[in-house]
Amino acid sequence: MAFPKSWLPIPPKSPFSIANIPFGIISTAANKTPHPAVAIGDNVLDLRIFAENKGFSASTVIEKEKDVFSKLTLNAFAALGRPFHREVRKYLQEVFTENSPYASLLEKNESLRQQALIQLKDADTHLPLEIGDYTDFFAGRNHAFNVGTLFRGPENALQPNYEHIPVAYHGRASSVVVSGTALKRPWGQILPDPKAEPKVPIFAPCRRLDIELELGMFVSRGNELGDSIDVNKAHEHIFGYVLMNDWSARDIQTWEYVPLGPFNAKNFGTTISPWVVLADALEPFSSTGLQNTTQLQSYLQENKKNNVIDIDLEVDLKTASGISTTIIRTNARKLLWSWPQMLAHHSVSGCPLRTGDLFGSGTISGEESGTQGSLLEQIQGGKVTLKLNGGEERKFLEDGDTITIRGWSGEEGALVGFGEAVGTILPAVSRK
Amino acid sequence: MAFPKSWLPIPPKSPFSIANIPFGIISTAANKTPHPAVAIGDNVLDLRIFAENKGFSASTVIEKEKDVFSKLTLNAFAALGRPFHREVRKYLQEVFTENSPYASLLEKNESLRQQALIQLKDADTHLPLEIGDYTDFFAGRNHAFNVGTLFRGPENALQPNYEHIPVAYHGRASSVVVSGTALKRPWGQILPDPKAEPKVPIFAPCRRLDIELELGMFVSRGNELGDSIDVNKAHEHIFGYVLMNDWSARDIQTWEYVPLGPFNAKNFGTTISPWVVLADALEPFSSTGLQNTTQLQSYLQENKKNNVIDIDLEVDLKTASGISTTIIRTNARKLLWSWPQMLAHHSVSGCPLRTGDLFGSGTISGEESGTQGSLLEQIQGGKVTLKLNGGEERKFLEDGDTITIRGWSGEEGALVGFGEAVGTILPAVSRK
Repeated sequence: MAFPKSWLPIPPKSPFSIANIPFGIISTAANKTPHPAVAIGDNVLDLRIFAENKGFSASTVIEKEKDVFSKLTLNAFAALGRPFHREVRKYLQEVFTENSPYASLLEKNESLRQQALIQLKDADTHLPLEIGDYTDFFAGRNHAFNVGTLFRGPENALQPNYEHIPVAYHGRASSVVVSGTALKRPWGQILPDPKAEPKVPIFAPCRRLDIELELGMFVSRGNELGDSIDVNKAHEHIFGYVLMNDWSARDIQTWEYVPLGPFNAKNFGTTISPWVVLADALEPFSSTGLQNTTQLQSYLQENKKNNVIDIDLEVDLKTASGISTTIIRTNARKLLWSWPQMLAHHSVSGCPLRTGDLFGSGTISGEESGTQGSLLEQIQGGKVTLKLNGGEERKFLEDGDTITIRGWSGEEGALVGFGEAVGTILPAVSRK
Repeated sequence: MAFPKSWLPIPPKSPFSIANIPFGIISTAANKTPHPAVAIGDNVLDLRIFAENKGFSASTVIEKEKDVFSKLTLNAFAALGRPFHREVRKYLQEVFTENSPYASLLEKNESLRQQALIQLKDADTHLPLEIGDYTDFFAGRNHAFNVGTLFRGPENALQPNYEHIPVAYHGRASSVVVSGTALKRPWGQILPDPKAEPKVPIFAPCRRLDIELELGMFVSRGNELGDSIDVNKAHEHIFGYVLMNDWSARDIQTWEYVPLGPFNAKNFGTTISPWVVLADALEPFSSTGLQNTTQLQSYLQENKKNNVIDIDLEVDLKTASGISTTIIRTNARKLLWSWPQMLAHHSVSGCPLRTGDLFGSGTISGEESGTQGSLLEQIQGGKVTLKLNGGEERKFLEDGDTITIRGWSGEEGALVGFGEAVGTILPAVSRK
């Protein structure tokens, strides 16, 4: 898709091209109260300042809702629904376009430009939405197969329900953190030898600390208790997407997860990228996911099959030495279940979804070596070692390791990217 | 414990004696915006009106925080911490005491009495707190054993981790509803014959709809990300308790729960009683739980062992015919893990707890027939039938059935009770 040129210099490799316009929550030295902004090139447009200074005055539709740009989170904006988000994105694209009829609003308004256009590096980012509930799906079929193979062999790798149900569990909303938040290595109960009998745990810091590469999705509008979301109308309930690292303490998980699922193995932290890329911005990159040959129940049958998104994903591991290695390259298409199917399944019981609910896709893995979204898969459960640049090796994460996820769709000059989801592992604190 | 007599007539069987003073959120015909109140006898004291009319003027400590009594939820009040809750409860007990020095505040202030003292039946109750995250534990050892026996036999009934870990899963906060909210029978994927191969589900309304009798606990103050709560200081993090019915779709659960735990089987609704009984009000009824002979990890070792609560619990099932039967009588002591142990375990990974987080105890079952907290246990997995008054029988719930949970501690005249947690099952709506 051809996008107009901007009067604002935007580096061609910027994830925040004029084709994107992602929304986030920032604070600055001058404005310490968190408030909405969009990222564009190496800048952010402070939407609170822009809205307060008649930036949206050329649209009566937007102008009358401009208070949503003064809130602490994007929830009020998200709740206005996808047609409104579409309108605001188009409007802001116009504002940044060269020779636009909107030039007087920002381009030719030097005073407002100086106030509202801030360098990206000078803006602190915060959690973009207040998360009501966080649900983590398990839609990465390759990951489910790889991990199932490690535990039960390839014949029984996938549970019998896997291709019938978009399997999910409720995650912990309070520990979802924005990119840049360091996490302390978690303590927990661990079996020193999972095969020894009787099973007697020790209490220790996690020794098998892993990552899970996921895509996150925020709900714009939900459903009432007892109602459900039609799979073929579900796309209207999507606000946008973020990158996600679902940090996982494998040793804690092994001991705790039967019969009620993962708990402390996951709830010490989940990192998301700060900029929510709108569903509309990613619409041109709709794609088909992994094939499911199982006959699906009616509520999961989609008229359109292209409801996952073609997003290139990369993960870097930087050790305390400062040397970085790209350890994963994969794509967000590698899902068995689409986002509308996840929405339909989650609500089919009558469970109410709300603005600001966060869904994780589950770990995204490709088929080839180096495309798997977790260390557990990459090291084949411990059989092999990951070789890093500079000569270091890893099985699981060590203290001081920094994980950076990047993701983008499209071509240079018109990238629709997420920026980064970054997290560093700090040493465990004393707990005894 | 002897409590003073009130100038307000309080029926001796009222759960809301002067020894109690539970907090909730009400609205009335005159004041439709939800706001805080306490229940006392057949009345509620509207705390917004009371606070706005100098009701708390005899305490500078309370007076300066009186804005918390004008909020939509109890979160701001809960966040002030247990010493503050203690102060307010004592103050209100004094206000209701005969011949109290506080008589001028309400007893002798007819105008305020007429505004602020409202009949309980004229107050609509709402969710008392905005729930950040809801976590459901599995601390009812008898329930875990009974259900484990049904699935795996008595030898393997309890998982190897059960007596080491206060096992829990993250529940769904958005579907926690206040007493009186009717729930539609949920739809979901069900195996018509769980033993048949291959396993092919159908899509249908739940056929094995069950209840789970639990106690709920609200967190007053939490902990920061990366920190943890000391088991021996954890009682200071408790705001109070409610009754809980963790409705469960057993057939949906059977098919969906491996490997990530229950999801749609639970997230269609969880009913809680409207009045939060403060931790302090229940302190005199502290008790020891079920014995755990396993050597516990240091972070779970309590100096005081009496950290569960002696609360008599009853469950009535009323059919559409209007005839009611008490189907369960048990006690909230029947837990293997205490509330401080649950708080310590949940946070030991560094997971942040927040004001308004809700914990469920897990299903509470005694040892004898009729004391088990779910239908699944009472009907021994389906082998027997529950006989109801009026000649009806039940295995699982039918449309039009109403479940009422009651709970109380103490003696007539000084009851510390919860009132009721009530829910009616409505027929499934069309989903095809």
